[in-house]
Amino acid sequence: MKREFAVIGLGRFGGSICRELSEEGMEVLAIDLEEDKVNEFKNIASHAVIADATDEKVLKELGVRNIDHVIVAIGDNIQASILTTLMLTELGVQKITVKAQNDYHEKILNKIGADQVVHPERDMGKRIAHSIISNNILDHLELSDDHSIVEVKAGKKMSGKTLVDLDIRAHFGCNVVAIKQENNKEINVSPMATEMINLGDILIVIGADKDISRFEKQLVVDD
Amino acid sequence: MKREFAVIGLGRFGGSICRELSEEGMEVLAIDLEEDKVNEFKNIASHAVIADATDEKVLKELGVRNIDHVIVAIGDNIQASILTTLMLTELGVQKITVKAQNDYHEKILNKIGADQVVHPERDMGKRIAHSIISNNILDHLELSDDHSIVEVKAGKKMSGKTLVDLDIRAHFGCNVVAIKQENNKEINVSPMATEMINLGDILIVIGADKDISRFEKQLVVDD
Ligand SMILES: Nc1ncnc2c1ncn2[C@@H]1O[C@H](COP(=O)(O)OP(=O)(O)OP(=O)(O)O)[C@@H](O)[C@H]1O
Ligand SMILES: Nc1ncnc2c1ncn2[C@@H]1O[C@H](COP(=O)(O)OP(=O)(O)OP(=O)(O)O)[C@@H](O)[C@H]1O
Ligand SMILES: [Ca+2]
Ligand SMILES: [Ca+2]
Ligand SMILES: [Ca+2]
Ligand SMILES: [Ca+2]
Repeated sequence: MKREFAVIGLGRFGGSICRELSEEGMEVLAIDLEEDKVNEFKNIASHAVIADATDEKVLKELGVRNIDHVIVAIGDNIQASILTTLMLTELGVQKITVKAQNDYHEKILNKIGADQVVHPERDMGKRIAHSIISNNILDHLELSDDHSIVEVKAGKKMSGKTLVDLDIRAHFGCNVVAIKQENNKEINVSPMATEMINLGDILIVIGADKDISRFEKQLVVDD
Repeated sequence: MKREFAVIGLGRFGGSICRELSEEGMEVLAIDLEEDKVNEFKNIASHAVIADATDEKVLKELGVRNIDHVIVAIGDNIQASILTTLMLTELGVQKITVKAQNDYHEKILNKIGADQVVHPERDMGKRIAHSIISNNILDHLELSDDHSIVEVKAGKKMSGKTLVDLDIRAHFGCNVVAIKQENNKEINVSPMATEMINLGDILIVIGADKDISRFEKQLVVDD
């Protein structure tokens, strides 16, 4: 059974959610105040309608109460974001995710019953900060405050060696959980100890941040 | 040696980058047009100055040409973003990362010499779409178009079983690379086969998207 979603606000953030959910085969109702935004999603979402989400009657007519999960991605107009969220909770929508502009906005959203509050710009800023601290850390997933998964590109110091040769686990306490080969688009998610690493291969490494950082300084950065 | 960064534009995105780089001990020069934004970062960044980044003389006076990596996080004013980027390339800044508002903006930025163009709202929209498709997928790192790392919460079907009992590798082709215990804040990045999984534990799983999706349908979703 297909799950039903609604995305209210089709800016860059809401638009991206709407597009990705639709690509994954989900039923999505796309709503925005502006006609041109709605037209952009006519052929992407299951339904796209021009509507003011702060208007309770409109939300009822659209049958929003029967939708499993509604995402409120209204940006600058914090008042409209709050009012819409409030009405969605009153209609009894099961799950509501809302984009917040700042901490005050988040507090209010939590108080009135939003299930999930997200800060896309802030979270992406954090991710990008980590990726730019090292030119070699390509992507980064924060598992907790002090543990992460990172993607690093193999340089000269690793090239031609096997995982046994490098013994990253013993020396740094972190684990190589996958290898993306440069020439070959394949990802090996069960690398063997005898696996040879080539220049430009991408290693996916899990561990404590301090261990990853030592590993990176000693093996990843080329002099 | 500490690396030097500058962040131009201290909105939510640029502000978050500035904060995170500073927390990681990097030297950061923070620049914004608005006094109150700059004041917010006086005690966070190494230096925080009120300046118009489209003014070449100002950039020169601030010594921006000697900074390793400059991040342009100007949002709505696309013209200011482009002009600033152009001047940074002309000053010979080594690495320039710029936030783009849309595809046209990105094209221009690439043409004039930006090294990295980012779309924070769009990328975060994608990530969140994936995490909301399943209520059980908490976070998601896309390794390639068809491979990912996901965080899933153990429900009743996994609780009280060991990794050997579940044999996720044999049944689904994906690997559990770490376990976050619910009560204990520790993350085990080298889980043993005899490790017992408890309700609410978070498993970090790597594999092909189709395998993760099968695993999720059969073992993660509780009926
Ligand atoms: N009451 C409303 N009902 C429906 N849509 C609305 C309402 N108010 C605003 N929107 C729509 O929400 C969308 C996003 O809002 P806005 O442009 O303010 O945010 P933004 O921060 O620029 O978004 P993003 O960062 O995602 O690009 C806009 O397309 C806007 O038309
Ligand atoms: N010429 C300039 N020089 C320095 N700073 C600038 C310039 N133009 C804009 N800024 C600053 O860039 C910051 C971000 O811009 P803006 O508020 O338009 O983007 P935004 O999309 O709302 O940002 P975010 O999504 O990151 O919150 C603002 O604090 C603004 O003062
Ligand atoms: Ca904006
Ligand atoms: Ca924005
Ligand atoms: Ca951190
Ligand atoms: Ca995809």
